[in-house]
Amino acid sequence: LISKLPHIETTIFTIMSKMATDEGAINLSQGFPGFGSDPILLEMVAKYTQAGYNQYSPMSGIPALRNILAKKTQLTQGYFPNPDQEVTIVSGATEAIFCAVTSVVRSGDEVIVLEPAYDSYEPAITLNGGVPVYVPLNQGDFSVDWERVKTAITSKTRAIMVNSPHNPSGYVWSVEDVNQLAELVENTGIYVISDEVYEHITFDNRQHISIGSHPILRDQTFVCGSFGKTFHVTGWKIGYCIAPEVLSGEFRKVHQYVTFSTVTPIQYALAEYLEEPERYLSIPDFYQKKRDLFAEGLAQTELEFVPSTGSFFQLVSYGHLSQLPDRVLAERMTKELKVACIPISVFYSDRRDDKIIRFCFAKEERELMEALNRLKGLK
Amino acid sequence: LISKLPHIETTIFTIMSKMATDEGAINLSQGFPGFGSDPILLEMVAKYTQAGYNQYSPMSGIPALRNILAKKTQLTQGYFPNPDQEVTIVSGATEAIFCAVTSVVRSGDEVIVLEPAYDSYEPAITLNGGVPVYVPLNQGDFSVDWERVKTAITSKTRAIMVNSPHNPSGYVWSVEDVNQLAELVENTGIYVISDEVYEHITFDNRQHISIGSHPILRDQTFVCGSFGKTFHVTGWKIGYCIAPEVLSGEFRKVHQYVTFSTVTPIQYALAEYLEEPERYLSIPDFYQKKRDLFAEGLAQTELEFVPSTGSFFQLVSYGHLSQLPDRVLAERMTKELKVACIPISVFYSDRRDDKIIRFCFAKEERELMEALNRLKGLK
Ligand SMILES: CSCCC(=O)C(=O)O
Ligand SMILES: CSCCC(=O)C(=O)O
Repeated sequence: LISKLPHIETTIFTIMSKMATDEGAINLSQGFPGFGSDPILLEMVAKYTQAGYNQYSPMSGIPALRNILAKKTQLTQGYFPNPDQEVTIVSGATEAIFCAVTSVVRSGDEVIVLEPAYDSYEPAITLNGGVPVYVPLNQGDFSVDWERVKTAITSKTRAIMVNSPHNPSGYVWSVEDVNQLAELVENTGIYVISDEVYEHITFDNRQHISIGSHPILRDQTFVCGSFGKTFHVTGWKIGYCIAPEVLSGEFRKVHQYVTFSTVTPIQYALAEYLEEPERYLSIPDFYQKKRDLFAEGLAQTELEFVPSTGSFFQLVSYGHLSQLPDRVLAERMTKELKVACIPISVFYSDRRDDKIIRFCFAKEERELMEALNRLKGLK
Repeated sequence: LISKLPHIETTIFTIMSKMATDEGAINLSQGFPGFGSDPILLEMVAKYTQAGYNQYSPMSGIPALRNILAKKTQLTQGYFPNPDQEVTIVSGATEAIFCAVTSVVRSGDEVIVLEPAYDSYEPAITLNGGVPVYVPLNQGDFSVDWERVKTAITSKTRAIMVNSPHNPSGYVWSVEDVNQLAELVENTGIYVISDEVYEHITFDNRQHISIGSHPILRDQTFVCGSFGKTFHVTGWKIGYCIAPEVLSGEFRKVHQYVTFSTVTPIQYALAEYLEEPERYLSIPDFYQKKRDLFAEGLAQTELEFVPSTGSFFQLVSYGHLSQLPDRVLAERMTKELKVACIPISVFYSDRRDDKIIRFCFAKEERELMEALNRLKGLK
């Protein structure tokens, strides 16, 4: 059997989470919350499950959830996608990204990927016969080098993958970034696939600007979001795609035959839960406390960093302390200091190693404190 | 935007279910139960959700569910797949089929599809650049014409899609059928993608024979199953794939980037629920009563049929009563008699119309009785 994905191995998230478990280490690697969700939301899932909302939902999602998501988008991003034609509920943002890529990328098409990049973009492109064209983000702050993006565009460019707040760096796009993207892709027929799973996690009063909120970009963009990331339930595997009718039409054709629909009782629960905007509007404050705590603690260690501005990740540099490859350092840290992290070379196509590792700070305060305490041992 | 699936429209299941709702008709079209699941199972989902089992499961599924599924396979099919390497939990059998096809089908590969066929096979093949090669099942009983299958095999044949118990006909493969398949594909390198979602729904003491139970076929087969179909919870979107290690390895690479993992609290609930084999061993009897009731009632109508031998579907012929195209008849039946069904021409690549429609009898007794009563009006 000749593999269609010969280069793909077990993801680093699986490897590091398993190593953390095996070593009894604090797991700050794979991005998932170490605390529970709101008991009210859990209660709602129990309620709808036991009340019998357990058969297929409509393929595009239940109307109540599509409607309230459109309202949330209006409230937070200032535009109202048509819930019937432009909003689709899917089995997690990974499925959203996969279906968006599959909708538009054909054999030989080039797709621009800004790196470091989340690891699902490339296989989705490759499985569709597309060719990823990598553009590195700026060193230091991981902002976009728009000149380099411009240079990467060719007549074969079919789409560009964007991601703000950015995983792993936490960089949040500015109005300028969004405008630059609009300038570059307007009237080019290039589609934008926008991974916005950390839309509700930004710090220091920064605002997340959805690519869908831009009047020009909106017409050529798939916005991919995640209820799991927003409400601390990554295991529910429920997300969404917002795209104009023509793109949503193609997206739904794919989704219809990839999973068909998404877990019904959870859709009902989320539809009810989203009725109170405070439930998502309070999230930045909730995570800011963790970011601050983690940054304060890190300042007591030998590690170098700039505080994260979004997402629940914090990058740190260790190059001044050690020249170990980041994967080796991550392994040793897990085994010796008992703190697991993600080496970020895996987010680069060439596995470039800048001696940077990623911590997830979506954890309980005392777990973060204990991890920070252990990290003081790194010299 | 040039569509990659230009021929795909809204599925017939969505169309007929919507029409049933709009017309206030009894919905015997789309295949989902009209009754609840076991309250014990629902209670378990509530329990694990509220106990906080809400973060990512391992990519291949939680060990407890993979283990108990391997045991169930041992008990019902006489072989024990390795739970770590050969069993993967996915977001529904549709995802299982999509990922299996994506794992092995490359551009230009031919894939044999026995028709009438479930509507997700073709788009999965087409999206991977494959070419579906259709072989009609025998008229009348929908058994397999093995001579025709043999003739359809070429040097380009990469895989064959099989489905027993068969949707829409209910035909259950015999030992002979399985042996014929083995004879045809042994040592050919042709993969078998086996849709076995109705594995627990067979009648008149017929046994479902999993393709995975065959010692030769097992090594080249992806068995795709569905917990939703088995436990009356089609909206949970949870299924599985059993395949030998090499195939499961490729399957998981795809699954990892299509959805990554499947809803965690439901996995825990199913793992606990499956501990009592009676919970699935009792299903044939449960559905046999419905099959019998439906067949007895149909005998009082003018429709012609042979009682279904598996699945929760019953085909009926109306050609002696009317020459209306089946889609038109289905629409009129929904609007005038207030009973919705599926016209089976949609399951044929050439939309061949044999004047046959499909009813789903996974409904409450009184709903079936009322539907049967209304069907007496068909003359
Ligand atoms: C699907 S596992 C990876 C979770 C995640 O988004 C991350 O850790 O970056
Ligand atoms: C995914 S909707 C179709 C359900 C089904 O299996 C059928 O009705 O045949």
